[in-house]
Amino acid sequence: MARLVMKFGGTSVANIERIRNVARHVKREVEAGNQVAVVVSAMAGVTNQLVGYCTEASKLHDAREYDAVVASGEQVTSGLLAIVLQDIGIDARSWQGWQIPLETDGAHGAARIMNIDGTKLIERISGGQVAVIAGFQGIGPDGRLATLGRGGSDTSAVAIAKAIEADRCDIYTDVDGVYTTDPRIVPKARRLEKIAFEEMLEMASLGAKVLQVRSVELAMVHKVRTFVRSSFDDPDTVGVDANGNPPGTLICDEDEIVEAQVVTGIAYSKDEAQISLRRVADKPGVAAGVFGPLAEANVNVDMIVQNTSADGSTTDITFTVPNADLARTLKVLEEAKEKIGATSIESAMDVVKVSVIGIGMRSHAGVASTCFEALASKGINIRAITTSEIKISVLIDAAYAELAVRTLHSAYGLDKH
Amino acid sequence: MARLVMKFGGTSVANIERIRNVARHVKREVEAGNQVAVVVSAMAGVTNQLVGYCTEASKLHDAREYDAVVASGEQVTSGLLAIVLQDIGIDARSWQGWQIPLETDGAHGAARIMNIDGTKLIERISGGQVAVIAGFQGIGPDGRLATLGRGGSDTSAVAIAKAIEADRCDIYTDVDGVYTTDPRIVPKARRLEKIAFEEMLEMASLGAKVLQVRSVELAMVHKVRTFVRSSFDDPDTVGVDANGNPPGTLICDEDEIVEAQVVTGIAYSKDEAQISLRRVADKPGVAAGVFGPLAEANVNVDMIVQNTSADGSTTDITFTVPNADLARTLKVLEEAKEKIGATSIESAMDVVKVSVIGIGMRSHAGVASTCFEALASKGINIRAITTSEIKISVLIDAAYAELAVRTLHSAYGLDKH
Repeated sequence: MARLVMKFGGTSVANIERIRNVARHVKREVEAGNQVAVVVSAMAGVTNQLVGYCTEASKLHDAREYDAVVASGEQVTSGLLAIVLQDIGIDARSWQGWQIPLETDGAHGAARIMNIDGTKLIERISGGQVAVIAGFQGIGPDGRLATLGRGGSDTSAVAIAKAIEADRCDIYTDVDGVYTTDPRIVPKARRLEKIAFEEMLEMASLGAKVLQVRSVELAMVHKVRTFVRSSFDDPDTVGVDANGNPPGTLICDEDEIVEAQVVTGIAYSKDEAQISLRRVADKPGVAAGVFGPLAEANVNVDMIVQNTSADGSTTDITFTVPNADLARTLKVLEEAKEKIGATSIESAMDVVKVSVIGIGMRSHAGVASTCFEALASKGINIRAITTSEIKISVLIDAAYAELAVRTLHSAYGLDKH
Repeated sequence: MARLVMKFGGTSVANIERIRNVARHVKREVEAGNQVAVVVSAMAGVTNQLVGYCTEASKLHDAREYDAVVASGEQVTSGLLAIVLQDIGIDARSWQGWQIPLETDGAHGAARIMNIDGTKLIERISGGQVAVIAGFQGIGPDGRLATLGRGGSDTSAVAIAKAIEADRCDIYTDVDGVYTTDPRIVPKARRLEKIAFEEMLEMASLGAKVLQVRSVELAMVHKVRTFVRSSFDDPDTVGVDANGNPPGTLICDEDEIVEAQVVTGIAYSKDEAQISLRRVADKPGVAAGVFGPLAEANVNVDMIVQNTSADGSTTDITFTVPNADLARTLKVLEEAKEKIGATSIESAMDVVKVSVIGIGMRSHAGVASTCFEALASKGINIRAITTSEIKISVLIDAAYAELAVRTLHSAYGLDKH
């Protein structure tokens, strides 16, 4: 017997037929003797339609009213899944955020979860009733509906799992797990059986769009074991891997990963632009002088590289922004140029960031040099390098992106056999 | 300064453009210095779609889950109208039934309103904020969403009007008021300036589909002055009648109708079938023996006529049912025939009930004879007659329906000049 949260996204509940498929997944877990809470998103397309109504109603709409409109999508799905579950003989009821209650802060439209009272849910699921929870929504301190922002249903699921002390949070999605890299680029990419929270965080924020970054952060903080698997598997005769588990990837504490790989995966992030400020003064406050105005202009700066000064008085700063923000970025920098004191501002579109990720590299030497040697062997020029404890990122020309990912994937022994 | 409830149905809020039109109606009242609460239905078509989902999910769906699904329609409209109002500079916020709270009984899917706490609404609207209330829904004793059944938004509006002690409840609909009879049949039908609650109740239940019967009952009990008008009038330059009022019909206490007409209107009810039981025993319990089994079979019996016995031992009973229920009715009666002791069961499809309605007939003699003479003058045969204090109904062949309605409309001086 285990206590589970099962989360299903919009494509998994896009119509009644798919909701029936979801119900069979739930039935399987109930019949295995598990206590189950299900978290659902709005039916695919519904949220976009509701957001469209709000935008048509007013470009500057009140976020509290937006929330009242948009939260209705998950409300509908929760009721429908409860009906379908009852129809196949499973005791179930729907729960809206305000009924639990799932309390948020007052940042309507992108609220943060403040507290979840799991008492009523635990009471019901302990009694054998499936709780079908509307994801993405809660109740604000003003007693009004609040939504968690895009991808909020993943966050709901992880937070609910914490609140009801679930053994695991199963995220059903349209892929069957987390891969060593993008299988569209590297056909030899392998599905990971397990990945540590920290690694997943890097993979998620770097473009492996399986799970929202926020939900991974939350899972890491509260150590919620999160299992990513496909909702399109046959629910009754779900395939199993060599270890008897259903196919999927468990995101968990690194302690649970007995034999950690040095490198777990290769991520990449496209459509970046590189900006280099040459010979800016090497003195306190210069970096703030660069990035302050960019933050005010709402430019999302990603990678930042600044080397130590060679001549003791000036240095170069390189950073990346989304391609779409390049023109705006250059405009901001031109205005600030005098203050920054750079001799020139150089930029390049169409660069790509490729990252090597692995918790094991904390305790293994030579991981970086393997990366640089592998890229050099294919004649790929590295424009910039940054590293963190569990990640090495290199900036290269976009034309070499696929080659670089494939090369690194092989170099770290990630190709499937 | 007045305190108003304004209610808009599904066709009036079918899209954002129409919601903007609704907002202009609201703005007009706010700018006239009135305190305003608005009650809205779901956008046209949305409720049917949601009900369709529930039916597809399961033929026998849990009414509590049905309510969670279906109540979302009004939730969306309330948020959108609040956004549009704010967009044109009107302070407004949406209210869900559970936020007010509007408390219902536990009869999910067709709940009755038990209590409305008007405190918060009064506080806000007194401060100049427009309350935009999701109609049709409330919160049950189980803390779950409850809907009031079809036409529930009218009932919400009247109940809210009572709760906030509104001076008037304005029902905006797709007609501009209540007419002396169906204008499609009698082009000379006049819009009534005022109609008494009791009269409206007869008109509504007899097929003048302007307002739900339930809402009229509620308005009568609580003496809520209810004004029916068109939502498609230009909100800014709304037309006025000879007395300076906007076109529409006020449903009010009879005391407010200074010079009551003897007859206010002519209603009719089509698609009825007549059944006559001949020579049933004239003894206690016979009527119960007839109508008990029909009630169990869910047959909606309308008009019932039983004359006093001529021979002291047997009598005839005549009643009407919807055409669609005739076959089922006859089957039930055949099974009960022996017990009832009728010599024969006769039936006729395609009869129509025509009713003459007017509070004034309580104090005026000769109203019935005018009816019978008028019909006789056109050679229309009366199959059966029933009367109440304020109504005379006759059952005639359907072929004569339009002729009868027109004839009676003229006979009681209702034709417009």
